Amino acid sequence: MDSLLSRINSPADLKELSVAQLQQLAAEMREAMCRLLGTRSAHFASNLGVIELTLALHTVFDFERDRLIWDTGHQIYPHKMVTGRYPLFHTIRTKGGLMGYPNPAESPYDLFVTGHAGCSISTGVGLKCGDDLLRPDENRHVVVVIGDGAFPSGIVFEAMNHAGWLKKPLTVVLNDNKMSICQRVGGVAEYLDRLRMMPLYSGLKHELYRLLGKVPLVGDSMEKLFDQLRDAVKAGMLGGMLFEELGFHYVGPVDGHSLAALQKYLRMVQQYPGPVLLHVITEKGHGFPPAEKDPRTFHAPAPFERVNGGEVQFRNGASVSYTEAARDAVLAAMEADPRVVVITAAMCQGNMLEPVRDRFPERFFDVGICESHAVGLACGMAKAGLRPIVDIYSTFLQRAYDQIFQEASLQNLPIVFMLDRAGVVGADGPTHHGVFDIAYLRPFPNLTVMAPADTTEMLPMLKFALQHDGPAAIRYPKAKAERVPRPLNPVCHGKGEWVRPGRHGVILCCGALLGTCLQAAELLASEGWDFGLINVRFVKPLDRELVLDAVRKFAVAVTVEEGVLQGGFGSAVLEAANDAGLETSHIRRLGIPDRYIQHAERAEQLEELGLTPRAIADMCSQMAAERGLVRPIRPAKAIP
Amino acid sequence: MDSLLSRINSPADLKELSVAQLQQLAAEMREAMCRLLGTRSAHFASNLGVIELTLALHTVFDFERDRLIWDTGHQIYPHKMVTGRYPLFHTIRTKGGLMGYPNPAESPYDLFVTGHAGCSISTGVGLKCGDDLLRPDENRHVVVVIGDGAFPSGIVFEAMNHAGWLKKPLTVVLNDNKMSICQRVGGVAEYLDRLRMMPLYSGLKHELYRLLGKVPLVGDSMEKLFDQLRDAVKAGMLGGMLFEELGFHYVGPVDGHSLAALQKYLRMVQQYPGPVLLHVITEKGHGFPPAEKDPRTFHAPAPFERVNGGEVQFRNGASVSYTEAARDAVLAAMEADPRVVVITAAMCQGNMLEPVRDRFPERFFDVGICESHAVGLACGMAKAGLRPIVDIYSTFLQRAYDQIFQEASLQNLPIVFMLDRAGVVGADGPTHHGVFDIAYLRPFPNLTVMAPADTTEMLPMLKFALQHDGPAAIRYPKAKAERVPRPLNPVCHGKGEWVRPGRHGVILCCGALLGTCLQAAELLASEGWDFGLINVRFVKPLDRELVLDAVRKFAVAVTVEEGVLQGGFGSAVLEAANDAGLETSHIRRLGIPDRYIQHAERAEQLEELGLTPRAIADMCSQMAAERGLVRPIRPAKAIP
Repeated sequence: MDSLLSRINSPADLKELSVAQLQQLAAEMREAMCRLLGTRSAHFASNLGVIELTLALHTVFDFERDRLIWDTGHQIYPHKMVTGRYPLFHTIRTKGGLMGYPNPAESPYDLFVTGHAGCSISTGVGLKCGDDLLRPDENRHVVVVIGDGAFPSGIVFEAMNHAGWLKKPLTVVLNDNKMSICQRVGGVAEYLDRLRMMPLYSGLKHELYRLLGKVPLVGDSMEKLFDQLRDAVKAGMLGGMLFEELGFHYVGPVDGHSLAALQKYLRMVQQYPGPVLLHVITEKGHGFPPAEKDPRTFHAPAPFERVNGGEVQFRNGASVSYTEAARDAVLAAMEADPRVVVITAAMCQGNMLEPVRDRFPERFFDVGICESHAVGLACGMAKAGLRPIVDIYSTFLQRAYDQIFQEASLQNLPIVFMLDRAGVVGADGPTHHGVFDIAYLRPFPNLTVMAPADTTEMLPMLKFALQHDGPAAIRYPKAKAERVPRPLNPVCHGKGEWVRPGRHGVILCCGALLGTCLQAAELLASEGWDFGLINVRFVKPLDRELVLDAVRKFAVAVTVEEGVLQGGFGSAVLEAANDAGLETSHIRRLGIPDRYIQHAERAEQLEELGLTPRAIADMCSQMAAERGLVRPIRPAKAIP
Repeated sequence: MDSLLSRINSPADLKELSVAQLQQLAAEMREAMCRLLGTRSAHFASNLGVIELTLALHTVFDFERDRLIWDTGHQIYPHKMVTGRYPLFHTIRTKGGLMGYPNPAESPYDLFVTGHAGCSISTGVGLKCGDDLLRPDENRHVVVVIGDGAFPSGIVFEAMNHAGWLKKPLTVVLNDNKMSICQRVGGVAEYLDRLRMMPLYSGLKHELYRLLGKVPLVGDSMEKLFDQLRDAVKAGMLGGMLFEELGFHYVGPVDGHSLAALQKYLRMVQQYPGPVLLHVITEKGHGFPPAEKDPRTFHAPAPFERVNGGEVQFRNGASVSYTEAARDAVLAAMEADPRVVVITAAMCQGNMLEPVRDRFPERFFDVGICESHAVGLACGMAKAGLRPIVDIYSTFLQRAYDQIFQEASLQNLPIVFMLDRAGVVGADGPTHHGVFDIAYLRPFPNLTVMAPADTTEMLPMLKFALQHDGPAAIRYPKAKAERVPRPLNPVCHGKGEWVRPGRHGVILCCGALLGTCLQAAELLASEGWDFGLINVRFVKPLDRELVLDAVRKFAVAVTVEEGVLQGGFGSAVLEAANDAGLETSHIRRLGIPDRYIQHAERAEQLEELGLTPRAIADMCSQMAAERGLVRPIRPAKAIP
């Protein structure tokens, strides 16, 4: 079944194969990918789309010495299969198994862990400069593969601007599959649409001739000439002016599923003495009809099985989640107030915002993978009087750190940041964890930072944020919907709430681990320790009265957060206690330590971090014992 | 002398003036600017360059309803003069006076506090979208003025990509003065150079005719035709394809010192139904010959007086500074190791790197105002085996937050970040303070964070960083060189040092306030309190042994830093003490509270923040009194 694939131990083995054999290999790789998707969720359609490109790259270049960077990196599976990792391919995205992104720890063929889009040209230019200075005679080639979705990212433009000026050989392969994760947007997208209409490169001159034959060249029709020629150029007759103007030589478009064409053009650009952009057209999901038809669903689908006739049946439906609760809250807010608009950065699908887009198309803005612009845009809108919601993954909002500073916090504008995927995210691993947000948002003046304890708090928090006169962030995890049973207190600025009274100690919980903390308190109660529980709700401003009262009153206080411990919520509690002159040695902080958390299931990661009911309870009882508390022989009853 | 200028109370007053009167007004404004520069350092050449543009904008548009955003904002002086603030103009950049950047708190004609480059198109698009949704009948025009230096910033591309796709009316005035603060770099710069060679707009069609008349149109010379036409387009005959491809209509170039031409073209673009880029050529320093000749020196010159013959004599030479010490350390490191390269982002002059550029041109990379790319580039270089130094202001490195995360910290690559202007920066105010860096860098795994206590520590810290196997940051202030008298201990990873022993309490100082803290200790000694002093050197990893020993041993411990208190160095001390189970109520943290610090002299800002010898000493003695320490009647002698 894998007659060829199982014999590929390194890219060197590919060089001996004929084009026909490479085509058979491609088919085997597609099949291996479909088998994987029978077992677990993974990136799929984009990987199906780059199989031929991967094979062509590895047969034309020698990446033992040449340099290859896959931008964003979720299209790395075919590359992993042919760089000695096919035997481990079934472990991908599981704890201890292969990572779903490039990983230098796995293979010398992977140069950078990527995951955030758009940095590949920068690092590629850096590699080229480094090789030129350190080993000028080796003439190593640098190849960067970047998708059209990542292409409008600001850093891509910054890097192309620099590369075009340096004029060093560098190949940027624009893998154009006509979409980002969501529908593409922007002038560049339209531009690529026009380029894609062009005859392939070889036909260009003929077309030019045909066109110019029609242009009147004398007389009083100069105006017409001008417009016509201008339109002709705009229509892409010369092709790639956007890239040419930046100093890149444009070649393309090339059929990304023709191995022969890819090899031919890659060999051509290999010889070019300056920066080249090779425009390759691929089809997301290529070779698997259901994915070709619906590449968005198949970007990272749930596990499926193939039933009769090539139909696909997904194994489990999507469960209700924080993401859905956030989306529903956004919809409700938009119903209630026409000033509310939503901005996302290519996360329309990830944040399940399609119903928002369909219901309020004029008030929905997907700007593509351009987080910096998303925040700048929101601030302009707020200045005009709208109430914008910026709905972006926590980790990707890092791209807008400086705009959160200058445009939102310094101007004190009423923007709401909805930070999805805050905390550990499971199989995507360290590039995607949203664990820095509390630490990076908390220092900004004027900014309010909230974390709902369960999905029922989402709507009240959003409502609060939208009427608050300043920027506010709401962070929540990639997790199933949860309701922690308790009366729902109104959300008031800087106010937390008691969830459970206690006697021996108190757990201060920030965000969606409240249910876990409640279970911990129940475990403790069953063991004779009576711990109270606070839902802090606001990381900033902190409810000083509530928090300091707890710190003062209890012999043990444990803070719990799904974020980094340096500068996080626990540190905010320490700071508040310190400012008030209180002692803090009875406080213990639980959260994410000073290292990267590898890919695994989210539950496995929380287990590893000691963020389970059992581990939290153990920490509490250990602290209680250390502080000399006496445990009653019979379980205590909680008292108010 | 100001016969016209002193009568301008609002832009409405400009509309009554003839072009000749406006020209006279421009001359008066230039003279007012020169008078100001007789008294203090301020942005100069760029302001001289936009006087006519400012007058043209305010005479064509009505910015009581239309929207005007000045990108970066240091060219705001003429705008302030004609929007009712001329009477206060002499106060600019002084404590309590006008800000050197746009400021909505001063005037409704200022929409955003700007200072970091490139965000204006984003916020402009946001304003347009907001106005269209909230007041669709008012047809307010949005005008953004952005310099060619800011233009290659990634967010500009992101915003133009979006604006070109939205197709809403929006005027981007590209104020092209042929330079960033430093020499321009990049493909866009070269592109603008070509555009600038173009005949002005009205002459365009004639030129096109002339060219096409020479093109052979039949026969076997198709190749030649193709190349020729292609070159013609590349040479800019049609103009602005880079912008046109993104969906903008390109108009220009226009002489930015001709009021009549500016008014004419602004009226033209005012009518255009979609996004327009108006390319305006200005001269930095226009109208003041010394500044025209040397616009870099006159970007933000020291105070000067005009002597005979129009010559300029600067009042005080630049004093030796941390910036120079950093530059000298970089030079020494480059001499010692050919793998060391330097990357800056348009801060060649600000960071005084000209000697580095001139001595090692192949190992010096100025990427323009593209901080994200600068860090990505450095990481590629490090991967290739170089030892890159990224030399950028603390506040501007915020633009690369995500690259510091993904490219540097996650990959654990040996990059050195030199963060100039860390701390409060004086007259530039809140957009330029480098006060968040400790808080934003500390949470990243693998990253080492250092702060030299004086200029003599700069070289040893840089040497340490360059041999360290991972990313490291060195942060230092915009301040005069200082040497705190003490034996210079070698710099070891995560090790601080005792600077002065003590008995009653201890001051833990992070960075360049060590001299201030030493003076505080001396003041305390003269008053009978014996306080020790620690130079912590490493914020991360913290010297736990030293710090915890101090926290354990002394009845009072005061942390001092020039950075935000949320998540800063003091919090790192609290965290370390807490992790070790120590009490912390005897610790007091001094630093920057949770608000923005307005522009003033740096010394005034430190005074305001309580970061002077007197204020620190007072805090120490107050703490000592609170903790019940008994002050000896006679001054104590410090004992080891």
